Amino acid sequence: MTPDLERAGAEALDRTDPLARYRDRFVVDDPTRLYLDGNSLGRLSIATRSRLAAAVDEWGARLVEGWHDWIELPARVGDRLAAIVVGAQPGEVLVADSVTVNLFKLAHAAADVRSGPIVTDAGNFPTDRYVLDGVARQRGRAYVEAPSIGDAVDAAAGGVLCLSLVDYRSGALLDLAAITAATDALVIWDLSHAAGAVEIDLAPAELAVGCTYKYLNAGPGAPGFLYVRRDLQPRLRSPIQGWFAQRDQFAMGAGFDPVDGIERFAAGTPPILATLALDASLDLFEDAGMGPIAAKGRALTDLAVRLADAWLMPFGFVLGSPRDAERRGSHVALRHPDAWRVTRALIERAGVVPDFRQPDILRLGLAPLTTSFTDVWDGLDRLRGLVERGEHLELPPKPTRVT
Amino acid sequence: MTPDLERAGAEALDRTDPLARYRDRFVVDDPTRLYLDGNSLGRLSIATRSRLAAAVDEWGARLVEGWHDWIELPARVGDRLAAIVVGAQPGEVLVADSVTVNLFKLAHAAADVRSGPIVTDAGNFPTDRYVLDGVARQRGRAYVEAPSIGDAVDAAAGGVLCLSLVDYRSGALLDLAAITAATDALVIWDLSHAAGAVEIDLAPAELAVGCTYKYLNAGPGAPGFLYVRRDLQPRLRSPIQGWFAQRDQFAMGAGFDPVDGIERFAAGTPPILATLALDASLDLFEDAGMGPIAAKGRALTDLAVRLADAWLMPFGFVLGSPRDAERRGSHVALRHPDAWRVTRALIERAGVVPDFRQPDILRLGLAPLTTSFTDVWDGLDRLRGLVERGEHLELPPKPTRVT
Repeated sequence: MTPDLERAGAEALDRTDPLARYRDRFVVDDPTRLYLDGNSLGRLSIATRSRLAAAVDEWGARLVEGWHDWIELPARVGDRLAAIVVGAQPGEVLVADSVTVNLFKLAHAAADVRSGPIVTDAGNFPTDRYVLDGVARQRGRAYVEAPSIGDAVDAAAGGVLCLSLVDYRSGALLDLAAITAATDALVIWDLSHAAGAVEIDLAPAELAVGCTYKYLNAGPGAPGFLYVRRDLQPRLRSPIQGWFAQRDQFAMGAGFDPVDGIERFAAGTPPILATLALDASLDLFEDAGMGPIAAKGRALTDLAVRLADAWLMPFGFVLGSPRDAERRGSHVALRHPDAWRVTRALIERAGVVPDFRQPDILRLGLAPLTTSFTDVWDGLDRLRGLVERGEHLELPPKPTRVT
Repeated sequence: MTPDLERAGAEALDRTDPLARYRDRFVVDDPTRLYLDGNSLGRLSIATRSRLAAAVDEWGARLVEGWHDWIELPARVGDRLAAIVVGAQPGEVLVADSVTVNLFKLAHAAADVRSGPIVTDAGNFPTDRYVLDGVARQRGRAYVEAPSIGDAVDAAAGGVLCLSLVDYRSGALLDLAAITAATDALVIWDLSHAAGAVEIDLAPAELAVGCTYKYLNAGPGAPGFLYVRRDLQPRLRSPIQGWFAQRDQFAMGAGFDPVDGIERFAAGTPPILATLALDASLDLFEDAGMGPIAAKGRALTDLAVRLADAWLMPFGFVLGSPRDAERRGSHVALRHPDAWRVTRALIERAGVVPDFRQPDILRLGLAPLTTSFTDVWDGLDRLRGLVERGEHLELPPKPTRVT
């Protein structure tokens, strides 16, 4: 083994990691369990736990008077998300609803101003594909699931294009600026696997949605967010005409008359507690900075790729992610014909938590604020040991229906 | 004053109130403040506070493995809501999204099977009116805001009708069974001001939505719910085709193929913490029973009406709610030309928290589990004293824009 693949190499990386100290600011219930989930749910920070408790007490004490502050929360936390995480301007990001509902809103809004087809790539995240298919059907438009990103861009001319900035399986990171410049389609970027993992500059982007429960650590089912570039806001409207988008909301007036700003894409009463959890989490991202966070993500995934190359390829694994760290998010896909059993064996027998994605992907999410280089080394080491011993073969075969 | 309008009368009602003890199960931060908000945000129960803390710890400890239980939560808590609160069958209620988004989903679904106009009454809650207007526009249908409930029923023939079971201003309680039987429109009942306040039997109803942050005490921005009668479920589909509605969700398959049950009306990732708060709150409603809760609601509002008749009518107040308790929810509207200033003065100077609704309504919400008869007596007594002294006249006039 080359020296840099020894555990001491990972330990050395941890010693010089400027973000190493952030790990202590999260709840780590069982330090022997390596949490490399990729990334369906981010860890709970200690500050977020306190903030949630305070938010609950605030509900109990202030009751309806709390709304004097809460009413601004979706836009106020949206502004912080814009500045700290996604590279947008004040008034361009709103915390609201789920990714699914937000994408639905923006896809309809985009279809109002582009008459062409509604397009994504066939590998995009399922809810994106399902939502777009439904919007296309409602609007009587062609819906295209292109076989590749390039084909999707080509097919979307004059229409609406939805792409994930970081692919949920491969972790491939697209060139937002180049793709946006190359098409006259209105592009909706799904930032779910990108927000909090890579540096994002939304300035060239027109529309985006994203989630906060993965790398942004806002909790299970925490709200999504949406971005609409300021110059586009007056031209677009949400198909879901809710009272939180209404100008002079408590006049409760006769007709729907949406506000001018980003809140015109709000719908119903926003989820206050979860939005306050996100607000607390953003303190950590502000403090650490997305530049260093993304750099650590590249270093963590680099280490994982090098260890996988050295240790796992003999056992039938194939790298399912880009080799170039600049073209990758903060997770790594390892493909293996028996990936489902390997994943289950890792969780049940080796104390490592990755996740499985159809059809053959073991996905390792390496959240920069909460993952150490030795976590990566130990996780890959346990994986190597497990497949060396063939332990996964002792598990029942992959069931037809996988959860 | 007649003897039953003396404070001793209210004290006697409290002594024999079988639900009096539930008040101690809620957080009451300042016992001198009378919380008669009507009802924009219900109180926090002590059990809900504990349950939320446990849920946050569960997130921290179980991380993604928590989803093994959480995945079923929206339907499981929906089943409890069905049985305990809204009189529906298992598999007919789902906790999801906001009232606004749920109404949007069901209005589109209903428009798929009824070709006529989309109708509500002009007095319905603003978000309902705005959503329905938007759905009608999308579907190329006539949208009608009828001047009365009766006119709305007439206008909706062959179309889609949305009505609030309890009116958010007057508190008027409609006859769900009679109205449903009288029309061939598909009726969507908005239960926002009814759920947890009155007994509901949804058996005759086809569709309904509702909220959980008012009488159901699930917290600020807690999710809404939706109801689709079982026989209708296979014929209806949500316009928002999200992955939580997908059959075999984690197969992440090619095309949208919704499940057969109520979860076909789910969209994105559900808000877990707030849904667990609702689950905890439902324990109290199950324990107390909606029959006794609704009976106490009638008795509380009866007392408020009697006191208002005796004390407030000389000062220009007019009852804005039905006199017959059987036709009323658990809140009372008192109309007064200067209601805005009276409301502000009550909050700022008298330690009473009602709320104001346009144009001239002081609304008193008397949540049965958390309001005593002496609260009502004291609140009305303070109101009487305030208007007797003309204290509200010392406040600045109502601003053009009211929040």
